[in-house]
Amino acid sequence: MDTVNLKTLAKELNLSISTVSRALRDSYEISIETKQKVLALAKELNYEPNPYASSLRKQVSKTIAVVIPEVANNFFSLAINGIEEIAQLKGYHVLIYLTHDCYLKERAIARHLVSGRVDGILMSVSSESNDFAHLAELKTKNIPMVFFDRVCEEMASANVTTDDYEGGHKATSHLIEKGCKRIAYLMIARNLSIGQKRMAGYRDALQQHGHSFEESLVINCSNDKEQNYQLIKNIITSENPPDGIFASVEHLAISSYYACKEQGLNIPGDIKIVSFSNLETAPLLNPSLTTITQPAYNIGKEAASILCKTLSKKNVNSEDDESVELKSELIERESTQN
Amino acid sequence: MDTVNLKTLAKELNLSISTVSRALRDSYEISIETKQKVLALAKELNYEPNPYASSLRKQVSKTIAVVIPEVANNFFSLAINGIEEIAQLKGYHVLIYLTHDCYLKERAIARHLVSGRVDGILMSVSSESNDFAHLAELKTKNIPMVFFDRVCEEMASANVTTDDYEGGHKATSHLIEKGCKRIAYLMIARNLSIGQKRMAGYRDALQQHGHSFEESLVINCSNDKEQNYQLIKNIITSENPPDGIFASVEHLAISSYYACKEQGLNIPGDIKIVSFSNLETAPLLNPSLTTITQPAYNIGKEAASILCKTLSKKNVNSEDDESVELKSELIERESTQN
Repeated sequence: MDTVNLKTLAKELNLSISTVSRALRDSYEISIETKQKVLALAKELNYEPNPYASSLRKQVSKTIAVVIPEVANNFFSLAINGIEEIAQLKGYHVLIYLTHDCYLKERAIARHLVSGRVDGILMSVSSESNDFAHLAELKTKNIPMVFFDRVCEEMASANVTTDDYEGGHKATSHLIEKGCKRIAYLMIARNLSIGQKRMAGYRDALQQHGHSFEESLVINCSNDKEQNYQLIKNIITSENPPDGIFASVEHLAISSYYACKEQGLNIPGDIKIVSFSNLETAPLLNPSLTTITQPAYNIGKEAASILCKTLSKKNVNSEDDESVELKSELIERESTQN
Repeated sequence: MDTVNLKTLAKELNLSISTVSRALRDSYEISIETKQKVLALAKELNYEPNPYASSLRKQVSKTIAVVIPEVANNFFSLAINGIEEIAQLKGYHVLIYLTHDCYLKERAIARHLVSGRVDGILMSVSSESNDFAHLAELKTKNIPMVFFDRVCEEMASANVTTDDYEGGHKATSHLIEKGCKRIAYLMIARNLSIGQKRMAGYRDALQQHGHSFEESLVINCSNDKEQNYQLIKNIITSENPPDGIFASVEHLAISSYYACKEQGLNIPGDIKIVSFSNLETAPLLNPSLTTITQPAYNIGKEAASILCKTLSKKNVNSEDDESVELKSELIERESTQN
């Protein structure tokens, strides 16, 4: 009997291969009826998804590693979905490794991967890292790598990012247009280009609108939620508190909401908040949160596509490194209303 | 020079091994000062986390796989943190595989793991699965497995669960006590014991309070958000709509909020909502969401501890299977106020 593959199923059901593939991975884009038809036939014909079959045949690992700081973050969970969409199409298993934003953990994972356990790596670096020798080592082993979102500018590599400078600029300009005079910037990843670009956007927007930049309004946050909460509480209860907060990552917006709630501050009456965020509940918060929303799913797809393209070539050549920048979007909600 | 390990660092700094370990993984329980001290010494002494060193020495994979439906769910992201806490202590790398609640994907992953790529497996089964031959195959290969949360009752194995029956009972009783007469149950995972137990709790609570059970109030949901939204919209706009919703998983509560908002229904005035959830933003929603909260972090820790204990033994024996049930908690918030 011929191998049953996506094409067989598609032909039998008179559907496109892409529809069958998406039905099998339970994509929300496919109707339940179609999914049921596809699944029924797949079971009947004993269809096996590509990765396993293909890995047995070719004796390669047919896996790619995704190394990211955390999963309790809607940006990364959406990016993973995008990565898996492409990986499934191309016949790769996806392994996820978490660094918890810890340099030592990231280094240990990198060394673990040097052993050749995977064919390629997608990585968003730890915000704590400022030494990248462990990543350079992977590079010397010719393991293809693509960085996304939190990229490592010190290394020549393929990068998929969003317009972080413009995002920082848009968020800050928006707060100024809504009447904010003193805007605190909750910063993270000071060592990484992502942190620096968002901050540069903030700084330039202030200056272009005739506001002065104050070092005391830049709050150096971390991944320690309790500590961030205290830092935010300190600034909003200070003698000369900010009337706007620009959170550079999602969890800082959540900590800001908790701190304002605890202190009885009204958002947006007393203080307006905008954040880089893909939070699914942003529109349901009290008040709903104005966000700079990154195309997380597409970032994942783009990064995985570049990696798979590289893997399909015989020789990995650093001249192939391509970088892609996608656009983020300001979504205005109640937290910045005037 | 002696190997630098957690013990070396702990002794040098006069801290407990557990504190050093948690500092290295950036646990929120450890102060920033301690973390800085630990990291500084770790860098100075060139400390390498266990997994890599140990894997080289022993020629075993020193990895465990975590197979779960999704990460865009606070339950799983917290459980992963608990798993990683233990894995790090015991010197294991953690690989995360996502099934997207798709039976075929789960089966492909299981077959991939049969090849012996990992030492052990932690798994929360896909809600779509009702054939478990792929898991039985792993069992015959003597790869130790521990199931957590969404367990597979058809297999003799170690299970870590919460009191799903009691949770369902508590949620339903709470809505009744708050005055609800017609409570819709948003169900998922009808094939799994987790779905059946939560539903049994709902059913029994209704009867014990003298309410009749109506099949039409049980909404059979899926992982298709658009479809769930339509189903919820249909029931809340029906001729005889419910005055209470009990969502058996987090994303159904979010869909309910969107549907009520869209239809101009006031929560809790027109309809009260309670949900199984570990949503970090539950207290910040408009209105804040009453939840049955599972001890997700501890479930992860417990499952990983059982697996590591099994792995430390020479022979895996199914008689060792232990099952643990942890308690969930009702946290009352605005969405069920009367």
